[in-house]
Amino acid sequence: MKKFYVTKSRRLRSTPYTSRIERQGVTSYSSYNHMLLPASFGDTLENSYNHLKNYVQVWDVAAERQVEISGKDSAKLVQLMTCRDLSKSKDGRCYYCPILDDKGGMINDPIILRLDAEKWWLSIADSDVILFAKGLAIGYNFDVKIIEPEVDIMAVQGPKSFALMERIFGKKITELNFFDFDYFDFKGTKHLIARSGWSKQGGYEIYVENTKSGLELYDYLFEIGKEFNVKPGCPHLIERIESALLSYGNDFDNNDNPFECGLDKYINLDSDVEFLGKEKLKKIKTEGITKKLMGIIINAEEINISGSVNLTDENNNFTGELRSGVYSPHFKKVIGIAMLKKPYWKVSQSIKIKINKEYFSGTVCELPFL
Amino acid sequence: MKKFYVTKSRRLRSTPYTSRIERQGVTSYSSYNHMLLPASFGDTLENSYNHLKNYVQVWDVAAERQVEISGKDSAKLVQLMTCRDLSKSKDGRCYYCPILDDKGGMINDPIILRLDAEKWWLSIADSDVILFAKGLAIGYNFDVKIIEPEVDIMAVQGPKSFALMERIFGKKITELNFFDFDYFDFKGTKHLIARSGWSKQGGYEIYVENTKSGLELYDYLFEIGKEFNVKPGCPHLIERIESALLSYGNDFDNNDNPFECGLDKYINLDSDVEFLGKEKLKKIKTEGITKKLMGIIINAEEINISGSVNLTDENNNFTGELRSGVYSPHFKKVIGIAMLKKPYWKVSQSIKIKINKEYFSGTVCELPFL
Repeated sequence: MKKFYVTKSRRLRSTPYTSRIERQGVTSYSSYNHMLLPASFGDTLENSYNHLKNYVQVWDVAAERQVEISGKDSAKLVQLMTCRDLSKSKDGRCYYCPILDDKGGMINDPIILRLDAEKWWLSIADSDVILFAKGLAIGYNFDVKIIEPEVDIMAVQGPKSFALMERIFGKKITELNFFDFDYFDFKGTKHLIARSGWSKQGGYEIYVENTKSGLELYDYLFEIGKEFNVKPGCPHLIERIESALLSYGNDFDNNDNPFECGLDKYINLDSDVEFLGKEKLKKIKTEGITKKLMGIIINAEEINISGSVNLTDENNNFTGELRSGVYSPHFKKVIGIAMLKKPYWKVSQSIKIKINKEYFSGTVCELPFL
Repeated sequence: MKKFYVTKSRRLRSTPYTSRIERQGVTSYSSYNHMLLPASFGDTLENSYNHLKNYVQVWDVAAERQVEISGKDSAKLVQLMTCRDLSKSKDGRCYYCPILDDKGGMINDPIILRLDAEKWWLSIADSDVILFAKGLAIGYNFDVKIIEPEVDIMAVQGPKSFALMERIFGKKITELNFFDFDYFDFKGTKHLIARSGWSKQGGYEIYVENTKSGLELYDYLFEIGKEFNVKPGCPHLIERIESALLSYGNDFDNNDNPFECGLDKYINLDSDVEFLGKEKLKKIKTEGITKKLMGIIINAEEINISGSVNLTDENNNFTGELRSGVYSPHFKKVIGIAMLKKPYWKVSQSIKIKINKEYFSGTVCELPFL
């Protein structure tokens, strides 16, 4: 497939780590929240996949920007934006939360960090949640302050991330529970570190506020990480599809509701909390959904997705659209995430898809793949 | 300078014209409103600049997405978002409008098209204005419908655009005044066409709603455009900086107010209309601004901008930041747009800048350059 260069500018901004990852051999970028998100490092997709599953990688994910909402009405505003009940949320915890509009349509799916009862960070996927929050705050006349703080996340991911991080931060960091966060000292500077990250291979996200110290830490991770075979990396297409880590803009968007995305366990309709789209979601729950995200496995060896790809049954009836896809070395087939129409979302339903002018067959399966 | 590839996906979506421009030799992309925006076509920057200034180009600017606001309260919502008085706006007209938050900070600077008194299109720069509009509409409980319609703009720009478009649409299209729009027939399909575009070389923007007809029109423009030396193109860095066509995210962002951006003539503080940030802007006007966008000319032959670059005076005092810049064949120097601190924004003020580890001198000048 023909390749194209990316044109940088202040509008498609670099991160504090950009000069480092460019020395380390980054070869391609995506754009995410108006920022460069590394997408590959020269190695084959399969090699970097195997590396991530066996060793440890440091990722420049500064493009996961924070929306900081603080002030007297901050909890009210944050709750208004998500269908997940945050009334019993605790300081020092991360919460995966669908953000919805008043029609129940998805706007983003951040990890929400409760710094304290009046200070929250929404660690966002790729849409300007800050503008939605500002619009709501103005309209409702909430007493809040909404900013994008200077926070540039680096992620440490992979099974050896625990040993590597312990070497720097001591045993205490290995005792952090999944989705907890706390402050850890690096040479006199405190860094907020969460046990989280956009892979299922385990690891941490370091929310760097002190850039100078963060860059030192970045270099130190590679220095002492040699014995753990550390490499630079980035969110990995194969790994995230196999694990069904959904991607806003790829797998779902504002035209989809959280039931259709399979996010049922984050929808608290029986709670007392007030949030946008609640009545609409109740109606959807009663009436049932008519499309749903499912996995599909295709008997093909390659796919490149740059938009939705139509799926049909054997009689050429439209059955849904493929939204993400990649060749999986594990399955030795193409796997993908598709929004399928009722009744075609049944497991084992066969599908047909056109890739590079040729037709391939496939079947529907559950998510995640692994 | 090292180059990097762009990784495509559904999240960084292609346009209806993408396959065409890739056959025509596009070499690089930027991202804009979560969509691919072509950034170069193989030719040198100087050659494409000369071509644009002498002939005609067709641009895939589908990434200029539309936010459609319709319904009973649509005029009220649109007015709330901009400091430009739209109370006397007319159907069939385009209005360049700063969009502000309640602090007077810039959120976007779209062209607003009044389709009728209850239907508006905001043809946006690179930020999710739709989320701001939705937040406000929910908070204020406005009776509006807000969608991103399927509209994919192609622009026809350059001095020969008038002759080319006349050949297709007849004499009537040459009579369209600047920033007027109307509907024109192409083989039985009506297309909304505005006399507008993101260059100062003259031309049109075709708001394609019927994709099939739009693609036919795209091909036809190249077919009959041969005699006018038509080429594919894209918004041009040299041309737009020389003309001081400001770029949201590059030259200004949410931390800047419209006075600081030199947009005074679009700020109607004496009008009766209600808009966000009005009291704040009155205060700013009384107290005066402390930074301002100005031009700078640098005695250098090359620059690549991927973030703000600090400017100092000869004594190394911080005087402001360069936000966009390019080598101009016209001036045979680097020209740029900078946010300068008071009192350093005076014309002829000398500045110092570090480019690729070397220091260069320059001076402040008025915008536009040409």
